[in-house]
Amino acid sequence: MAKVTKLSGFPEWLPDGRIAELTVLDTARRIFELHGFASIETRSVEPLEQMLRKGEIDKEVYLLRRLQASEGEADPGLGLHFDLTVPFARYVLENAGHLEFPFRRYQIQKVWRGERPQDGRFREFTQADIDVVDRDTLAFHHDAEMAVVMATLLAELPIPRAIVQVNNRKLAEGFFSGVGADDTAAVLRNVDKLDKIGPAKVTDLLVSDAGLTPAAAQACLQLASIRTTDTSFVEQVRALGVRNDLLEEGLDELARVVAAANAVVPGAVVADLKIARGLDYYTGTVYETQLVGHENVGSIASGGRYDSLASDGRQTYPGVGISLGVTRLVSVLLGRDLVSVSRSVPSAVLVAVIDEEQRVASEAVATSLRARGIPCEVAPKADKFGKQIRHADRRGIPFVWFPDAGGDSVKDIRSGDQASADPSTWNPPAADLHPTVMTVAQEESP
Amino acid sequence: MAKVTKLSGFPEWLPDGRIAELTVLDTARRIFELHGFASIETRSVEPLEQMLRKGEIDKEVYLLRRLQASEGEADPGLGLHFDLTVPFARYVLENAGHLEFPFRRYQIQKVWRGERPQDGRFREFTQADIDVVDRDTLAFHHDAEMAVVMATLLAELPIPRAIVQVNNRKLAEGFFSGVGADDTAAVLRNVDKLDKIGPAKVTDLLVSDAGLTPAAAQACLQLASIRTTDTSFVEQVRALGVRNDLLEEGLDELARVVAAANAVVPGAVVADLKIARGLDYYTGTVYETQLVGHENVGSIASGGRYDSLASDGRQTYPGVGISLGVTRLVSVLLGRDLVSVSRSVPSAVLVAVIDEEQRVASEAVATSLRARGIPCEVAPKADKFGKQIRHADRRGIPFVWFPDAGGDSVKDIRSGDQASADPSTWNPPAADLHPTVMTVAQEESP
Repeated sequence: MAKVTKLSGFPEWLPDGRIAELTVLDTARRIFELHGFASIETRSVEPLEQMLRKGEIDKEVYLLRRLQASEGEADPGLGLHFDLTVPFARYVLENAGHLEFPFRRYQIQKVWRGERPQDGRFREFTQADIDVVDRDTLAFHHDAEMAVVMATLLAELPIPRAIVQVNNRKLAEGFFSGVGADDTAAVLRNVDKLDKIGPAKVTDLLVSDAGLTPAAAQACLQLASIRTTDTSFVEQVRALGVRNDLLEEGLDELARVVAAANAVVPGAVVADLKIARGLDYYTGTVYETQLVGHENVGSIASGGRYDSLASDGRQTYPGVGISLGVTRLVSVLLGRDLVSVSRSVPSAVLVAVIDEEQRVASEAVATSLRARGIPCEVAPKADKFGKQIRHADRRGIPFVWFPDAGGDSVKDIRSGDQASADPSTWNPPAADLHPTVMTVAQEESP
Repeated sequence: MAKVTKLSGFPEWLPDGRIAELTVLDTARRIFELHGFASIETRSVEPLEQMLRKGEIDKEVYLLRRLQASEGEADPGLGLHFDLTVPFARYVLENAGHLEFPFRRYQIQKVWRGERPQDGRFREFTQADIDVVDRDTLAFHHDAEMAVVMATLLAELPIPRAIVQVNNRKLAEGFFSGVGADDTAAVLRNVDKLDKIGPAKVTDLLVSDAGLTPAAAQACLQLASIRTTDTSFVEQVRALGVRNDLLEEGLDELARVVAAANAVVPGAVVADLKIARGLDYYTGTVYETQLVGHENVGSIASGGRYDSLASDGRQTYPGVGISLGVTRLVSVLLGRDLVSVSRSVPSAVLVAVIDEEQRVASEAVATSLRARGIPCEVAPKADKFGKQIRHADRRGIPFVWFPDAGGDSVKDIRSGDQASADPSTWNPPAADLHPTVMTVAQEESP
């Protein structure tokens, strides 16, 4: 339903699909604002050198050049941003004197990556990010808050159940050091391949690539298999017999996040010790999010803590944030028929036109309905009423209004019920006022 | 206030400026949906050949290339769209089989132009477009509807008075032909320079460039000076003594638009016969919009009718539309201090924290308030209450909530009034629930 993609990696939706997307966007905004996050937008372009600081992402940037650039004109050196974190860090540095810290912001924008499109990976897509950033130090309770806000948002959406999975870089790195790893980044990089290549191959790589002993590799795999809905992961890790100060710090942090989150959104946030978040530069808590039954699309909401989200050399700005992959989520909802949309237009009412001379009477009815917040449109042509009703029916508009000098009436074209009505007082049922997006019941797997 | 631009032509706003922008965007969406326009978004890129069909705009396109494109890799031939009309026409052609015609859509997105930035002209900016498109023929009453919807929207915004100015290409071309012009496009092009170079120079150009006689040039200038709030322009044009069939058709169309619009939004739509809309390919009605007292920023909402918005060779899709220049408008509002914003964050309440051990009690208050739609945030640190109140004050948050085992209380920090309150029932005054954007009274010119 509602999904069209003519240019690979650049998805577009039909109007009913767009209504599903708007539901996600509106809900995200509402939940973010209820939690006191302020909206910002940043420009779509950043100087290339700014973006390349982040490291390995450089392959995926789209650069701009003017079509009519004159011979010898300097390249503007601008690229389309590939995420909302780099631009946000730049915005914080540029405007620090005008912002109040800790600064809580949400940012819902498109981002671009020049990579090969795959299922769930796009060249243009929308993200909905929240971050909290402070100067010098950032209170740890925000690490739990990010998971809570995202879990709250996901629970409000017409989507399958979502589970926020949390891990902690200190826990992982401390453990890897504790089993004797010299290159903890190499261990992390290989553990991150678990879902793709499986435990046997990861074990081999931990020995051949990361230089672990077979016993240490085995312990790392055991660590990665731990997943608990409460803080019992702490005991399970301790049972592996590894001792390390950084590990203890990570265990304590992760336990605090899981305990605090489950106090607010029970069951929606789990500790999952295989979560690595690729090679992003997180320094503590990391988040990923699974859509239950659709784990193969990858994480739909990810993020983590940066000890230094931004720095101007004198001042450091630590931050923590999480990002909802709106396009990936909507693509799954539409591509797998997980939602139904009640109609393809905002109009709750089509006001019929008796003849073109009396169009002004129909316009007056529409103006009256709109003044009370009822979306409507006036029939484009004074066709026979049967044709005007079909016009409404094809768009899913539930009501047709018939102006009449002797007294107006309105027809529910689903039931056929027609009743007299006054445009200054009539209201549709609340459920019909705006299009609705509903979860489609999925067949149980056998 | 609230305006920052570090990269020329790519504006960004501080959080309070963004709230002003969101007010414009939210109002546009609400008015568009009340009138039955469906939302769509198109991808940000179009194939270059698609964009170049529109003609003279090619100088302004930003092309994309992948940073890591390999030697000999084919250029993707993609550019960032420079308006929302070309992408919409392509979307209509691609999806015609899935759309219901006439198709009413709104589209609020960023567009990019590689041109030199000036006051009111940007390299990246947001437009809010509505269009109605049909197959083969499109009813003329939509030409009045576009002006009505835009005037209705502008009247709802916290901005100076705006006037939608309407003209008609048939009227102008018919008149120019009627006075003996062979190249009516040259006449139009020169008349369009009136605001920039003045009537004397335009008269010279009409003779030297467009080949008119001095008397004909004079008549064209007289035509361009006609501006009426009703249909009396018809008699003023006829008094110039030019007879032409196309002119008559244009007079009739423009009179119908002005009459129909003024029946719904009196005084907001005028006939202004100097409006030319540059070299865009309009074929009938054209619109521009002046912000009274700020005419020098240029039109804030423009558009017109295309006999052929799109065509696939077999089928033609006529359309009519109008586009609000959101960034230009917001830039004027912020740059000229025309609006004030009540606070920089969505939070109506800051929930104080007694000590870190009791943060969970403050979180519970916040959860209870949010469940009833009250945006709030919990104090980031358990500082002394005076410091927590200053934290709220700096952000413009009007209320601070004090959890207390003996009974909570809430303080209006503007008045200092404090009263006991229950988080499951208390409500702020409606005016304090969300940030508000107000028009700042302007000093009268002497």
